[in-house]
Amino acid sequence: MDAITAMLTRRSIRKYTAEPVPDEVLNDLLQCAMHAPSAGNQQPWHFVIIRDRKILDAVPGFHPHAAMLKNAPVAVLICADTALETHKGYWMVDCSAATQNFLLATHAKGLGAVWLGIYPREERMAEIKSLLDLPTNVMPLSLVALGYPAEAKLAADRFNSSRLHYDKW
Amino acid sequence: MDAITAMLTRRSIRKYTAEPVPDEVLNDLLQCAMHAPSAGNQQPWHFVIIRDRKILDAVPGFHPHAAMLKNAPVAVLICADTALETHKGYWMVDCSAATQNFLLATHAKGLGAVWLGIYPREERMAEIKSLLDLPTNVMPLSLVALGYPAEAKLAADRFNSSRLHYDKW
Repeated sequence: MDAITAMLTRRSIRKYTAEPVPDEVLNDLLQCAMHAPSAGNQQPWHFVIIRDRKILDAVPGFHPHAAMLKNAPVAVLICADTALETHKGYWMVDCSAATQNFLLATHAKGLGAVWLGIYPREERMAEIKSLLDLPTNVMPLSLVALGYPAEAKLAADRFNSSRLHYDKW
Repeated sequence: MDAITAMLTRRSIRKYTAEPVPDEVLNDLLQCAMHAPSAGNQQPWHFVIIRDRKILDAVPGFHPHAAMLKNAPVAVLICADTALETHKGYWMVDCSAATQNFLLATHAKGLGAVWLGIYPREERMAEIKSLLDLPTNVMPLSLVALGYPAEAKLAADRFNSSRLHYDKW
């Protein structure tokens, strides 16, 4: 799929078929995530690939927008080891860029996905850290639910010229 | 350009030809930025397109990694109006996803760009707000220098299987 088309047609997909997503496919998506830019190219990210039904089913207990996980074959937590930061404080920016690459790759490969916000909600961060045994210095940014899509959405037109400014505000 | 190829071959480009970047080309890039996902689809972003030579030349006075702006035909500030947030505190995540789409579009269209971090460095944020007359509730996330490339870089291989975990850390 063309890069511009991928960006303009990607939508949040919350319904998936029962078809599993193999590791080879996930690795292609994760490779794209790992090619995101990061501050000073520090690449602080880690990824937890979650297929355990008990873990997936536990997330909606503390996350208000995660009901689709009960029918998702897999989810990926994108997090950062802050000990890897050579430019302190940029981990959430770096992991957001990695999440966006991951989402675009998902769409380009014919899968569907939705970004569930974890950071900056402190309660969700604490619950995910506990659920997945994350070390103290590892900070969760996003949880992406994905699978082969069981819904289709038309592209939205989000261009808004009122958000453009020239030289100054 | 294919979406996966765009993600795997994009690199930071800091040298540009003198060729101007027309508004029509910039609008295509900005359209991609505006199609990024955001928390609750709140789309809090604004964009300041900077071609004023005096403004571009002023940035390296307070930003340690912005020397390329002296030879860049244009830069785009990606910022958020926090008054537009329906999900408070997500503006930096949303603007990071928009910045990544903007960078990918730049590469896919044959231009070159580099992401200059503004947030979370408070001094840089204050200097940019002052330089561009940003309102109090507008927060700057990134400044992207861009142009037609005068350097070429090979794709890097950033896949790192040691960053993958299954079900738990």
